[in-house]
Amino acid sequence: MTGSFTGWTLDALGRDLRSGAATATGLLGRALASIDPSLNAFATVDAEGAAAAARVLDEELAAGRDRGPLHGVPVGVKDVIDVAGLPTGMGSAHFDGHVADGDAACVTRLREAGAVIVGKTTTHEFAYGASGDTAVNGPSRNPHDPSRISGGSSGGSAVAVAAGMVPLALGTDTGGSVRIPAALCGVAGFKPAYDAVPTGGVFPLSVSFDHVGVLAATAADCRTAYRALTRRPHDVPVPPGDLRVARIEGVPVADEVADAVRRLVPDAPTEHVDLRALRRVFAAIQDSEAYDVHAERVAVAPELYQRVTLDRLRRAERVPGWRYVRACRERARLAEEAAELLRRYDVLALPTVPITAPEIGQGECELGPVQPALLSMTCAWNVLGLPALSVPAGTAGGLPVGLQLVTAAGREDRLFAFAERIAP
Amino acid sequence: MTGSFTGWTLDALGRDLRSGAATATGLLGRALASIDPSLNAFATVDAEGAAAAARVLDEELAAGRDRGPLHGVPVGVKDVIDVAGLPTGMGSAHFDGHVADGDAACVTRLREAGAVIVGKTTTHEFAYGASGDTAVNGPSRNPHDPSRISGGSSGGSAVAVAAGMVPLALGTDTGGSVRIPAALCGVAGFKPAYDAVPTGGVFPLSVSFDHVGVLAATAADCRTAYRALTRRPHDVPVPPGDLRVARIEGVPVADEVADAVRRLVPDAPTEHVDLRALRRVFAAIQDSEAYDVHAERVAVAPELYQRVTLDRLRRAERVPGWRYVRACRERARLAEEAAELLRRYDVLALPTVPITAPEIGQGECELGPVQPALLSMTCAWNVLGLPALSVPAGTAGGLPVGLQLVTAAGREDRLFAFAERIAP
Repeated sequence: MTGSFTGWTLDALGRDLRSGAATATGLLGRALASIDPSLNAFATVDAEGAAAAARVLDEELAAGRDRGPLHGVPVGVKDVIDVAGLPTGMGSAHFDGHVADGDAACVTRLREAGAVIVGKTTTHEFAYGASGDTAVNGPSRNPHDPSRISGGSSGGSAVAVAAGMVPLALGTDTGGSVRIPAALCGVAGFKPAYDAVPTGGVFPLSVSFDHVGVLAATAADCRTAYRALTRRPHDVPVPPGDLRVARIEGVPVADEVADAVRRLVPDAPTEHVDLRALRRVFAAIQDSEAYDVHAERVAVAPELYQRVTLDRLRRAERVPGWRYVRACRERARLAEEAAELLRRYDVLALPTVPITAPEIGQGECELGPVQPALLSMTCAWNVLGLPALSVPAGTAGGLPVGLQLVTAAGREDRLFAFAERIAP
Repeated sequence: MTGSFTGWTLDALGRDLRSGAATATGLLGRALASIDPSLNAFATVDAEGAAAAARVLDEELAAGRDRGPLHGVPVGVKDVIDVAGLPTGMGSAHFDGHVADGDAACVTRLREAGAVIVGKTTTHEFAYGASGDTAVNGPSRNPHDPSRISGGSSGGSAVAVAAGMVPLALGTDTGGSVRIPAALCGVAGFKPAYDAVPTGGVFPLSVSFDHVGVLAATAADCRTAYRALTRRPHDVPVPPGDLRVARIEGVPVADEVADAVRRLVPDAPTEHVDLRALRRVFAAIQDSEAYDVHAERVAVAPELYQRVTLDRLRRAERVPGWRYVRACRERARLAEEAAELLRRYDVLALPTVPITAPEIGQGECELGPVQPALLSMTCAWNVLGLPALSVPAGTAGGLPVGLQLVTAAGREDRLFAFAERIAP
């Protein structure tokens, strides 16, 4: 499961590019050579377009134009995000043959920063699921054990980074879709604060919760990409001394996952967050908003959906409006509680996913049904719109575990500083 | 149908008070003497509390403390608005015996401006209906023909002003509940811009659309009360010359109502507004929000509702969440269209209600079912949150007709200036 970029950081790649030891064209060649079709990380590979972009970037660097730390870096883009001239497949037969006219805003920013778009990574159908095993082009597979799920919905992006095919990938995260596959595949994944990265050109799932995020081997590389996406070149200084960290409880966690996380933050006090209430709010709002997006497709061509997606949409259709309204009220109340907690702590720490990656097709796990378990610790931070980072936290039974770190908007640099202190 | 205040403006009452020709105590006596129980305008009369307040205000005026144009003026308050120490009955058996602890914010402002709260006016049950014929204390009756509806939901307030019992009353308006009874009873009613008057202490119907408004004999008196409620003592100057006025079409109107309105704005160009689309948006959002307010009451004690209210809530319960979401999106689109129209015009003119007052219990009118017809020209301006005024526009078949004038927030003074020009 090692690929061309396994063990490489963006810093190291940048040094080689600038010393002449590597070129963008060469990095692209390494990426293309590492793509293992059996893992199904990519729905589309754009060898030709990427090569043209790499050539231009090599010429620029030779001429002294340096776009910064993403210059010449091969990147995968989740297949719900438009890249001009490439298919946006959404993992669905509904978009068979659909080609994007233009770049999504986040892709424009990546290109401006010098990234080379290698191709489109496999997404759970319409990003509407956390397992990554439901797509017209098949499941993305966990590099640690290809019989297991990658997690989703940004499964292909996580697999591509975890297997060393690319050093960086874009994902989207509505309830955990960047962080969950990052955790299950053993890479880092960052969901910025709500609206920090523009969602123009990204197919919507639930507009109140949709975020664009990044996946890379390390938290530091996520930060580098995040800065490019938000056009924030510099850090906000982190206060010296200890950061105030709390360990968050609120839903059941498998013992071996809890142990792995506790090892990384052994001394933090424990606080309770009502993750169950946040999950109920999440479900009512996401389902109503998702069905609004899909109503006409369900009416006209239900047979084009994967069965599990159609079933999910049929349930979403029946969420009553008053439940949506009540969820919005409840969300405001829970946001006040979270704000209070974040006045007392810089960082909240909890597992990203309370289990390790189940087998593809497995419906139940030790904590109950798989899908709600996958989302149970991540969707809260979409409801609250807070920056949330998943970093590798070792393994349990040979499978990766993720530690999730959450902070207040504007304090992202404390989050990244803490991540580097505990998992350098 | 003439009462103590028929033909009196607030200006005239204020002159008498300040000349010594009248006292607050005397005005209160005239109000109490005019209350005709057969019209069912009041659910509660607070003779004692009002007398105490009037005495204090008389002493103040004698001592040189003048609170302004509402000093000593008897006012009715709709029975969904809290007045400390008085029942807030909501027109419902659910609130039998419920007494408010404190004053609603709008009542506080009225008291600060010197108003004397005479009592609580009959409301359509929970303000959830435009006819004014559904309440545990019975229908409020149209003073022009007591067999006909007052309109609602602020029916008692409209009846109290129309029959000269009080010169001013507070109402609430979620889809037309101030303007509809004002039009059907032949008085003026003003719904300010969304959030211009605080709704604290007012029982919610649909929080996105709930407004506090005022009813009085004339637009000028509505403006006086509006200034007190918003603590805006002065006019924004109205530009000299002609105001730009458009006549709005969009839903069917009975011929005699259309004629009465056309007489008042004969030369205005006609513009189309998609009142049907706005009505659909209104229904999806109002019903979802209303059921959120009532869910527990429906579950625990459905038998305490009037039958028609319970039926309406049962239908509201079934509005899907995705319809609510879609309505919110549609609302944003329609608001842009309206903003464009209001860049070209100062005032939009249309009938307030496309029919005159039907008989109590009448389910159908010449335009179809009564309830949607009543709301068909008013609820649009709640969806859009725009200031909207209904002024008397003569009669058709002996029954009052209302002209509705709409403007952009911040241009209320143009609205009132135009109202005075056409109906002095």
